[in-house]
Amino acid sequence: MSDLAIIENGAMVVEDGRIAAVGPASRVENLSLAKGARELNVQGRVVMPGFVDCHTHLLYGAPRLEDFSMRLAGKDYEQIARSGGGILSTMHRVRTMTLARLKAQAQRELRRMAECGTTTVEAKSGYALEARGELRCLRILKSLDGDPIGVCPTFLGAHAVPPECEGRPDAWIDHLIENVLPAVAAKKLAWFVDVYCDRNAFSLPQARRYLGAAQRFGFGLRIHAAQFEDLGAAALAVEMGARSADHLEHLNRASIPMLGRSQTTAVLLPGSVFFLGGLKYAPARALIEAGAAVALASDYNPGTSPVWNMQMILSLACTQMRMTSAEAVTAATVNGAHVLGIANRAGTLEAGKQADFLVLDASDYREICYYFGANLVALTVKSGKILRRAAEGESHGKTSG
Amino acid sequence: MSDLAIIENGAMVVEDGRIAAVGPASRVENLSLAKGARELNVQGRVVMPGFVDCHTHLLYGAPRLEDFSMRLAGKDYEQIARSGGGILSTMHRVRTMTLARLKAQAQRELRRMAECGTTTVEAKSGYALEARGELRCLRILKSLDGDPIGVCPTFLGAHAVPPECEGRPDAWIDHLIENVLPAVAAKKLAWFVDVYCDRNAFSLPQARRYLGAAQRFGFGLRIHAAQFEDLGAAALAVEMGARSADHLEHLNRASIPMLGRSQTTAVLLPGSVFFLGGLKYAPARALIEAGAAVALASDYNPGTSPVWNMQMILSLACTQMRMTSAEAVTAATVNGAHVLGIANRAGTLEAGKQADFLVLDASDYREICYYFGANLVALTVKSGKILRRAAEGESHGKTSG
Repeated sequence: MSDLAIIENGAMVVEDGRIAAVGPASRVENLSLAKGARELNVQGRVVMPGFVDCHTHLLYGAPRLEDFSMRLAGKDYEQIARSGGGILSTMHRVRTMTLARLKAQAQRELRRMAECGTTTVEAKSGYALEARGELRCLRILKSLDGDPIGVCPTFLGAHAVPPECEGRPDAWIDHLIENVLPAVAAKKLAWFVDVYCDRNAFSLPQARRYLGAAQRFGFGLRIHAAQFEDLGAAALAVEMGARSADHLEHLNRASIPMLGRSQTTAVLLPGSVFFLGGLKYAPARALIEAGAAVALASDYNPGTSPVWNMQMILSLACTQMRMTSAEAVTAATVNGAHVLGIANRAGTLEAGKQADFLVLDASDYREICYYFGANLVALTVKSGKILRRAAEGESHGKTSG
Repeated sequence: MSDLAIIENGAMVVEDGRIAAVGPASRVENLSLAKGARELNVQGRVVMPGFVDCHTHLLYGAPRLEDFSMRLAGKDYEQIARSGGGILSTMHRVRTMTLARLKAQAQRELRRMAECGTTTVEAKSGYALEARGELRCLRILKSLDGDPIGVCPTFLGAHAVPPECEGRPDAWIDHLIENVLPAVAAKKLAWFVDVYCDRNAFSLPQARRYLGAAQRFGFGLRIHAAQFEDLGAAALAVEMGARSADHLEHLNRASIPMLGRSQTTAVLLPGSVFFLGGLKYAPARALIEAGAAVALASDYNPGTSPVWNMQMILSLACTQMRMTSAEAVTAATVNGAHVLGIANRAGTLEAGKQADFLVLDASDYREICYYFGANLVALTVKSGKILRRAAEGESHGKTSG
């Protein structure tokens, strides 16, 4: 994760949205360019792969500002829920909002992400918690793919127990297995199936049973594991060959070597730890030292991680979890792509891959970790198309093109 | 600090860079406007005062990326200093950089601050640590005032002991009092004099002696107090009627009531705590509850707080120090202006004050605290002049005007 293979004085040729060549300028510039090719001179700046944000709850309707105010005033999770806040308030909103408004909310967030350098985002359902609403959300996510960035949909019907099944989580799992998973599979509405296995969510046996069914439908598996308590979900992820175990703030130390030996990626989400007060970050260093593949993602959601800027996640990873800048960049690009099964076409700048890249207002890549709360992305390019131009009056020099 | 006096459906009239009227639209829109007045329709958005960032080390030459890498690799402060890093590396750079390059660095940062909503910034000298170099830095800061935002210069010659006086801090204090303070005063190069009173910096008696001299020259006083250890500097600030005691992470609890009763503002700098790993934030809640005026600032500097975005500071204040959104806004606007002695013309939107305001890509002011790592400023207006326009392709609607 520490080797970024940086090319000083590099050049890249993009054709039809893909990288045709990349390497030292002295070699690449000798290639004869297609007639009418456009040149982008970004001398003195960093060019790097776009971020692959592999864990978000993109489609949520509206921010939860009242919850935020109540928490700052000292109210706890239970008090907020009793006042009508929490995940069920988002559920009510998502169930009742028009498709057009829900879609507009997600589109706004996708543009914000693109401005901050994300070129591919995973997005989960999980706020409707009823069959029709979940399918509607997945259809919206599918319709947003490429508008303007890539969207990989994950079905998270097992996010929480809906009020209709209160106290009967197994009934909701049964319903998902019998009625919803088949529809999601038949209509190819999701790439992955995810389950929230934690106290106040689903138990380990429920998660095992549910993911087993998802696997039989051919879905890749994801697990929300050990965010608040380690119920053994990370071990389950390894056992079932899940693509990832996500969160891991309360992972038992004894489980670290197991993840290190596995093919399951540890997806760390420091944004939610920060937003909830910064008490306990996931053991990033120990995981990396045990040989685990670590990815970083925003966990973008209205309750615990209202952050769309992956550069902020990199700063959190470095300053709060002691990842190096190089490890953070790897975790937020190619390792995220690996989780999503798209590392063959995204996550690095290599010939044949999608031309998903960033031009930074920086001469050293470490600046994106070092400067925090900032957006150093001057240009975001997705499949060869420029999505973000620097604002008028911004400080960096002009690119020619 | 909790009462923001929010006007729903408000309007504001700006003339000659000042606020001519502000209030409910029903009343303000009846005023006859000057011929040719330009209208900015920002319906559905928040308009708020620009940030007054009252504590920065703006002029530093270049980022300290090697220090950052060493720290992430587990090196401590002493090891970094021995490898040629730390404050003395910035000192060598600032002493030897050309005026043009130093000025260009600061101008770039001022534009970045403006884009993120800061309309007035305090900026300290303190990286040259020799008479001529300190005066040069203060002249640069003076020349930057209004380009594009307001710059209030502070003389921080007593930032560290320069190598020429190693082991003889009193000799450096003597030199400052005898040779530098008179020149700064004669040429009116600074509004305030600041001293870093902490372990590894200046002692309480040294700070007292130095600030006494500064006071006789008529300067307002600032003190870096209790960042790493409480030497009694906050009490000294109160005793001497300093405008502020800054940092306070390690303030003795017993000193809180004293600050609460005083006219000295507690300037809290959560950016540096975050960047250094987030171990111990200043006791914001206890200070507010004791009646202290609390201001928030970026502490922008290359060693411990590389953050120019005051919105990030507000997010830190809320999520890590449990300030409310309203308190954070007050602390970052009018309380910052109070520290700088400019509350009569900045920090709030009132008739007669400078038209320093922001238009947010948000419909609720709390969003600037809630979304973190983001820049929700669509427009920054300084003395009636628009400094930042939203980038092309950004998500918010167009303003007419």
